[in-house]
Amino acid sequence: MNNTKSRPLILITNDDGFTAPGIMALVEAVSEFGELLIVAPDSPQSGMGHAITINNPLRINSTHYFNGHQAFNCSGTPVDCVKLGIYKLAKENRKADLVLSGINHGSNVSTNVLYSGTMSAAIEGAMSGVPSIGFSLLDYDLEADFTVAQHFVKKIVKNALANKLKEGTCLNVNIPKLPLSEVKGIKVAKQAKAFWDDTFDERADPLNKNYYWLAGKFHNHDKGEDTDMWALENNYVSVVPTQYDLTAYDVLEEIETQFEG
Amino acid sequence: MNNTKSRPLILITNDDGFTAPGIMALVEAVSEFGELLIVAPDSPQSGMGHAITINNPLRINSTHYFNGHQAFNCSGTPVDCVKLGIYKLAKENRKADLVLSGINHGSNVSTNVLYSGTMSAAIEGAMSGVPSIGFSLLDYDLEADFTVAQHFVKKIVKNALANKLKEGTCLNVNIPKLPLSEVKGIKVAKQAKAFWDDTFDERADPLNKNYYWLAGKFHNHDKGEDTDMWALENNYVSVVPTQYDLTAYDVLEEIETQFEG
Repeated sequence: MNNTKSRPLILITNDDGFTAPGIMALVEAVSEFGELLIVAPDSPQSGMGHAITINNPLRINSTHYFNGHQAFNCSGTPVDCVKLGIYKLAKENRKADLVLSGINHGSNVSTNVLYSGTMSAAIEGAMSGVPSIGFSLLDYDLEADFTVAQHFVKKIVKNALANKLKEGTCLNVNIPKLPLSEVKGIKVAKQAKAFWDDTFDERADPLNKNYYWLAGKFHNHDKGEDTDMWALENNYVSVVPTQYDLTAYDVLEEIETQFEG
Repeated sequence: MNNTKSRPLILITNDDGFTAPGIMALVEAVSEFGELLIVAPDSPQSGMGHAITINNPLRINSTHYFNGHQAFNCSGTPVDCVKLGIYKLAKENRKADLVLSGINHGSNVSTNVLYSGTMSAAIEGAMSGVPSIGFSLLDYDLEADFTVAQHFVKKIVKNALANKLKEGTCLNVNIPKLPLSEVKGIKVAKQAKAFWDDTFDERADPLNKNYYWLAGKFHNHDKGEDTDMWALENNYVSVVPTQYDLTAYDVLEEIETQFEG
């Protein structure tokens, strides 16, 4: 990490928008660990994945919403926010030492990492060479209690700063909805092989034209006890080290054989 | 693959919208190989990554744009299109045998796979258990000549159907902008470690309020000769087998040690 003499610069974003309780809970939990720069979407951006804004310009507004911390909201996606925080909005062009995303209202386990704006922001941080962590609480309620989540955020961020998480490392942290006394601890795990069986809820508008809501059920086909879903079902906080190299190394040779000649 | 008695059902989408020349070029190239189902966005969706539409309903329209092939456009993202094609719009609820995405107008090499709507559509296909391929031509021109790209699309799709690409396999295919005689062949490769150095182009609107365009330069830090970027720079078509498991297996143990106690 750079800036060894000053406090670490922690870039914070989320995907539920800057007014979501989860980002305020994150800010409160980590303000003791460094100087904060908050860049968050001006509206909810759930399910935006790794989207970036290239067909439209971005609007940025400075906001006093976060008790004196340097903060901006922007019209873009969570990934746009990370790019702005790293390459544009930091004072004296200082590069962030850590990117934190969340605390998301709801789970980001398993393959949901791909749809998740929260985790895509963290992956973007890692791609920019900054260690990054995404936090999600398994509670979709906007009135959710973030106290237990904050406890683990503090623990994990303190650990990350002390151990100097490697450049490009990204962690996907999911926290069960449980009282602290029932959480068994932190489990480092792999992404479960679980998928959505999608359905589309068909409705008619007042003009009798159909529209469709994406719905569906999430099914875990993975019986392993080393997955994030297993950890959460067994009352652990799950931590999945997450990478941006999508190469399927295990089938490289097989595919090579198929495409020979 | 299922439906051994009938022709394979090939689901086709793209991220440049259903009127883009690239998807028509893809449809033309593969219509001889199976029954086509085309579901494409009704507007350009570049850079949408793995975004899904959950805060808004989807609109779907049947279209005669594709010379008699069953075709729909929808208000959603490329990933929405794949979900609709697999779970909603196929005749007799037939599950697609192959998902094809593209032909994208422009490169999707290296880490661009994460931002790419084209590749996210293919990854979504793989997550639904269907072998999937994303095609991109390194030519951003809307007047681009897709003849050479079509040659390799045919070759690769034929190969994929003959070799029965494994369930869940996803290929990222990038085709250089070259005459056929100068293309050296197909190279199976890994995703290069290359990244954007982002900049934001600042402008003032007529009301003197600032807005920003995401810009920047793409830098290849990867000197390996086994990458997609190397392949393309050396006049090969690159094929990267791509996975949706983002677990960073190589640092699992290290992170475990860091979070012990």
